[in-house]
Amino acid sequence: MTERFELVEKALITMLEEKNYGALRELMKTMNPVDIATLFSQLQDQKIALLFRLLPKELAAETFVEMEPEDQELLIRGFSDNELKEVLSELYVDDAADLVEEMPANVVRRILRQADPQMRLSINQILRYPENSAGSMMTTEYVSLKPDMTVGESILRIRRQGVDKETIYTCYVTKDRTLVGLVTVKDLLLAEDDDVLVEDIMLTNLISVTTHADQEEVARLFSKYNFLALPVVDRENRMVGIVTFDDAMDVLEEETTEDIELMGGVLPSEKTYLRSGIWELFKSRIPWLMLLMVSATFTGMIISSFEAALAAQVALTAFIPMLMGTGGNAGSQSSVTVIRALSLDEVRFSDLPKVLWKEIRVSVLCGVVLSLVCFAKIWLVDRMLFGNTQITLLMDGAVCLALLVTVVAAKIVGAILPIIAKRVKLDPAVMASPFITTIVDALSLLVYFLFAKTLLKL
Amino acid sequence: MTERFELVEKALITMLEEKNYGALRELMKTMNPVDIATLFSQLQDQKIALLFRLLPKELAAETFVEMEPEDQELLIRGFSDNELKEVLSELYVDDAADLVEEMPANVVRRILRQADPQMRLSINQILRYPENSAGSMMTTEYVSLKPDMTVGESILRIRRQGVDKETIYTCYVTKDRTLVGLVTVKDLLLAEDDDVLVEDIMLTNLISVTTHADQEEVARLFSKYNFLALPVVDRENRMVGIVTFDDAMDVLEEETTEDIELMGGVLPSEKTYLRSGIWELFKSRIPWLMLLMVSATFTGMIISSFEAALAAQVALTAFIPMLMGTGGNAGSQSSVTVIRALSLDEVRFSDLPKVLWKEIRVSVLCGVVLSLVCFAKIWLVDRMLFGNTQITLLMDGAVCLALLVTVVAAKIVGAILPIIAKRVKLDPAVMASPFITTIVDALSLLVYFLFAKTLLKL
Repeated sequence: MTERFELVEKALITMLEEKNYGALRELMKTMNPVDIATLFSQLQDQKIALLFRLLPKELAAETFVEMEPEDQELLIRGFSDNELKEVLSELYVDDAADLVEEMPANVVRRILRQADPQMRLSINQILRYPENSAGSMMTTEYVSLKPDMTVGESILRIRRQGVDKETIYTCYVTKDRTLVGLVTVKDLLLAEDDDVLVEDIMLTNLISVTTHADQEEVARLFSKYNFLALPVVDRENRMVGIVTFDDAMDVLEEETTEDIELMGGVLPSEKTYLRSGIWELFKSRIPWLMLLMVSATFTGMIISSFEAALAAQVALTAFIPMLMGTGGNAGSQSSVTVIRALSLDEVRFSDLPKVLWKEIRVSVLCGVVLSLVCFAKIWLVDRMLFGNTQITLLMDGAVCLALLVTVVAAKIVGAILPIIAKRVKLDPAVMASPFITTIVDALSLLVYFLFAKTLLKL
Repeated sequence: MTERFELVEKALITMLEEKNYGALRELMKTMNPVDIATLFSQLQDQKIALLFRLLPKELAAETFVEMEPEDQELLIRGFSDNELKEVLSELYVDDAADLVEEMPANVVRRILRQADPQMRLSINQILRYPENSAGSMMTTEYVSLKPDMTVGESILRIRRQGVDKETIYTCYVTKDRTLVGLVTVKDLLLAEDDDVLVEDIMLTNLISVTTHADQEEVARLFSKYNFLALPVVDRENRMVGIVTFDDAMDVLEEETTEDIELMGGVLPSEKTYLRSGIWELFKSRIPWLMLLMVSATFTGMIISSFEAALAAQVALTAFIPMLMGTGGNAGSQSSVTVIRALSLDEVRFSDLPKVLWKEIRVSVLCGVVLSLVCFAKIWLVDRMLFGNTQITLLMDGAVCLALLVTVVAAKIVGAILPIIAKRVKLDPAVMASPFITTIVDALSLLVYFLFAKTLLKL
């Protein structure tokens, strides 16, 4: 797929250079708006406006929605009032509201001036809801039916009103503005008779969200139940809009990226990697690096306080990286697994005892196997193969006991911390490897030196 | 939401204990099949069969599809032939094929015996495709139209055939079995006239996949283009089936989980965390732990070879964890960001020079800031506050220079390795923190000791 797209891209750029606008127009007509927008993002500014004006009206609007905010702003600044009006009239209300959210104030004023009064009203309504809430994701354009309408009347209504609605496939049944049920177009089309009443075929086991629900929660409902659309109601259960699955998928993707970034110790940003400037990347990375570097003062202090022991047995130092590394890896395995299970809602706070018991058994199993292999390896490789005669059986034993305790502690800490974090309303993903590694590093050193001092009598 | 669900759960279990089956049935009727299946997975075996038989026919089939394979197997073993036949007749072909893939051989034989001949044929066709291919995800139940049909004829066809089709909202236009276009039900319903021909309103800028396309690629297309369904064609571009968005979303979720697990050094498994046994978790975790532990032999060797220097200046040891930790964190920040960008197709192999140049600048910026702070911290805290007089300005300088070089090297390695991995058809997620940490650990120690030996003349 990627290669095919790169071929089309090259063909387009050649046509652009040859100013073969007729062929360009024909080729772009066969493309998906998403691909046209991707192509635009790689062109120079003046070329974007040129190509955009070649697109047929509807395709132009569809492409506009998919474009990066920077490119949208550029286009709007170049538009005449009439061009802007035309593009706006083709947009769905939720896309128009997204646009207004992204643009600077003077562009927003122009957009609102050119939007028709109905759209202006809807945009203002959507923008009143908090960012990242269901209200700010929704569109107010949906098909609404009444319980006492017949199937025939409903289909007629869809055919008359559908053109402006983001989806017609799920229709919402309201009574005095309160949501009472839903019917799909499939139900309507497959109904036995045109005279059947909507209230006799509508589904009433509804799942809806309130306008203030968090967008991540909304997206999770889509992926759990495979909805095409989800109704949004106010506190009095009055229907105010719908969220459609395309927006939910975008949110899901963003939230997953955010989780992954947090797990890697990066503060999430909205921009893609290639579009982020050096300064932005720096700002998203330096906080965790700095925090963890400074907190490593503790590990340094632990080592310093055991300096006498280390001076007496320098060979002990050689095992520090292995111990800390294995501890860190063991901890991040558990934390990553539990964080993902939490975000898929497979694990809840009430599962804490179950998780703890599972991790204790798995970690003992891993720890014992690793320690045995490590014991043999140190003796066979480090002592016999490389002839490091400082290594004694007791030292080997101290290293491997420390390894066992470290692995068990790391896995327990790694599994428990994310669950507790979620309980106290922190993002569990913060409790991933960078954070846990720092705790485990200190832990493993302490355990190691205590065993070494006791066993080797240092 | 979660709390509400837990309340319903409690109510159900109380009713079950009180054997109040009438109320149970009424309550379950108001629930979504996904939630009923979740509830079942928490019940004892004999209760599942009891509750399942209380469900109305259609809801029972919908619930069955959402259940865990273990629970499905349990139910089937308890079913009479007639009950099995009834559930099967309500399933879509792709769900039936999934079921057959999951069940043991003797259960599969029973299923195939009770399925009607048409379904048996379709199941066999789907199972012929490789696992994780578009062919194995697809369903053969879609609405197909001809280019010379009118809108009126098309709607009539949908109304007659639609009941057995997984989606009716996208209809595929074929000519001699070759895919030539698609029409949505929205287009049909909103067409100006019932006499308009399908070929005059169908979309022809089609995106399709072949039966052998990888399921991850298929899922990515859904999330990129927001499709409801995607046509699957054979090598001769003949239409053989469709993939629907609900299956694509499931694949996307699985693949993301796999990526996240790999990044945490865990071999991916298909089971959820709570359903995985101790032995399974052990097997998915021990390989990377073992590999990384053994490869830490290198870091041990590096330390051993600088033993004389360490013995002369024991204070040097105290900075090892900080150096290795910061290097590991710096590397995993870059690798995680790049791995995610690769899997969202935001970064390609041809972007390698751009990525390299970006990382060099960001890493120098991060490295310089960290080193300066580290220099001040070591002097003010370790030397002056804690009075560690072994620390000299030169030693402080050696640590901070090593830190700078480590951060830059770690970020470059972390960003480049995943891109190269993808190029040679390895999963980039393998190149995440555990793997990179091991490389960076060795690198940082080498650099540190070289600087220390040179500057401190050890």
